Amino acid sequence: MKELYSHTFKDTFVNINGEICSADNAKISVFDRGFLYGDSIYEVTYGEDYHLIFLQEHLERLYHSASLLNMTIFLSKQTITEEILKTAKASKLKDLYLRIILTRGETEISLDPNKSTHNNFIIIAKPKTIHPPEYYRKGLSLFIPNILRNDIQATNPNAKSGNYLNNVMAMNEAKKNDADDAIMINQKGDITEGTTFNVWSIKDGHIYTPPVSSGLLRGITREKIIEICKDNQLSFEIKSLSQNELLDSDEVFICSSTRGIMPVYKINHHIYGNDINDWKITKKLMGLYKDKIRIDTKGHFYYGQ
Amino acid sequence: MKELYSHTFKDTFVNINGEICSADNAKISVFDRGFLYGDSIYEVTYGEDYHLIFLQEHLERLYHSASLLNMTIFLSKQTITEEILKTAKASKLKDLYLRIILTRGETEISLDPNKSTHNNFIIIAKPKTIHPPEYYRKGLSLFIPNILRNDIQATNPNAKSGNYLNNVMAMNEAKKNDADDAIMINQKGDITEGTTFNVWSIKDGHIYTPPVSSGLLRGITREKIIEICKDNQLSFEIKSLSQNELLDSDEVFICSSTRGIMPVYKINHHIYGNDINDWKITKKLMGLYKDKIRIDTKGHFYYGQ
Repeated sequence: MKELYSHTFKDTFVNINGEICSADNAKISVFDRGFLYGDSIYEVTYGEDYHLIFLQEHLERLYHSASLLNMTIFLSKQTITEEILKTAKASKLKDLYLRIILTRGETEISLDPNKSTHNNFIIIAKPKTIHPPEYYRKGLSLFIPNILRNDIQATNPNAKSGNYLNNVMAMNEAKKNDADDAIMINQKGDITEGTTFNVWSIKDGHIYTPPVSSGLLRGITREKIIEICKDNQLSFEIKSLSQNELLDSDEVFICSSTRGIMPVYKINHHIYGNDINDWKITKKLMGLYKDKIRIDTKGHFYYGQ
Repeated sequence: MKELYSHTFKDTFVNINGEICSADNAKISVFDRGFLYGDSIYEVTYGEDYHLIFLQEHLERLYHSASLLNMTIFLSKQTITEEILKTAKASKLKDLYLRIILTRGETEISLDPNKSTHNNFIIIAKPKTIHPPEYYRKGLSLFIPNILRNDIQATNPNAKSGNYLNNVMAMNEAKKNDADDAIMINQKGDITEGTTFNVWSIKDGHIYTPPVSSGLLRGITREKIIEICKDNQLSFEIKSLSQNELLDSDEVFICSSTRGIMPVYKINHHIYGNDINDWKITKKLMGLYKDKIRIDTKGHFYYGQ
């Protein structure tokens, strides 16, 4: 435990309801509803060269998650933004990982969310996660587990909440099958999303990604890639994908805020190629996405001194 | 917040990894997987006249939840039992509410549960929840919400975990419809369970409750009532119940560890009667259950001085 904080959470700063502390002091009441029930929402973004990437979009999605869960946000968007920038600034990290968590606070022990009178608001800033560079060159191996994605009518995956056991268990199944991560299907057998990313398929030059109605989070990187496809007149369609349609792709890639675009070389026993040079459209999109970040985020949400 | 701790959590004692503290000092790291992902399991029981009720059964179920979630419990059952008794004893509460929470501890921020090397173990002891006596006399009003119970193939309700948003949202829908609580159905339209209780139907003198395969927690009180039915040669069957079958019952009751057996006077717009005298079989079971607790728990898990 001590090692965890001195190594893994070295240079980590946590803002708890406005107070900034080190990782080992970052504590929350056991009566917080986020701890008791996973009754919380969150966002993850990152900072690059002292700029927070697509923070506006992440804040909009935070509010969208809150509305799907009928969660009152007692803080103004301005306060939230200021606290985020304050935390990023305090970290002095040029490139950082940023996690924003908002819970329904402490109440008496009762499921009833209407008892909530305040939020607990936590911001974690730590050095940016370095994904292994070979993942971008050689691709990821993914696995489609037996466990299904939470159904949209039960626990809607489009609300980014503190209920992540479904994803934890999918990841567990993937690891037991020697894969890097998992893609989940829904009750119908259609592709939904990965444990922390959206999924894309390329077939005969056309680019596909499943609709939110399949049961997935409307990823911010996913939205940006949709814009890129439109702006560059690439053949693109949002469409349900059966498991077999995905497996039968020419190229597969995933996307998320912290990863950007990452190619996939394998799903279950299907191999899609050897390296990035085999995945022409994925490679092209990776370049376009990097350009887009550079252009769209220039001068926004600066947290340098 | 201050009021919450001085009023609601007055006389509340929390054991965190062996250290007992007051409610306002009971804190856990924001990096705990229970807080980040709801990656935790729990049990709730209570103490009556300095005896912990059915603690053995609750501990067995805790281990069962852990096995369903592939969670390693790094503590021995003996240590857990000793810590529970220590906490109950320290509270000096003759009648108490007891919550036991076990998480996969702190890890680096990653869904992969295999990174877990320890648990965080929390025990909350507080004065026993007093359910309004009129609920036992006049019954509860329940509502079947639009939100479905988590599917057994996605997030199995038979693992009692920290992922309770599904239940929170069902409760929310019930409250918005002026009901006391919610009963959820599954994808097929069959009855599963309430937000924190199992459900029973009585029709033409026969007693029914849905099977675990409908998507519900194997309640300990439910098991005890099954024993009572068998021991008393009551006509009883575990069988899937459609929504209409439940609505069409002569009597409906719910059961949970903290409530025991509680009658239901209304589901949606269906009224089952006026008071306990209208629900003969429920009333009989309530008596038999009280006897059973008294007999079965005598001398077990004593925490008096």
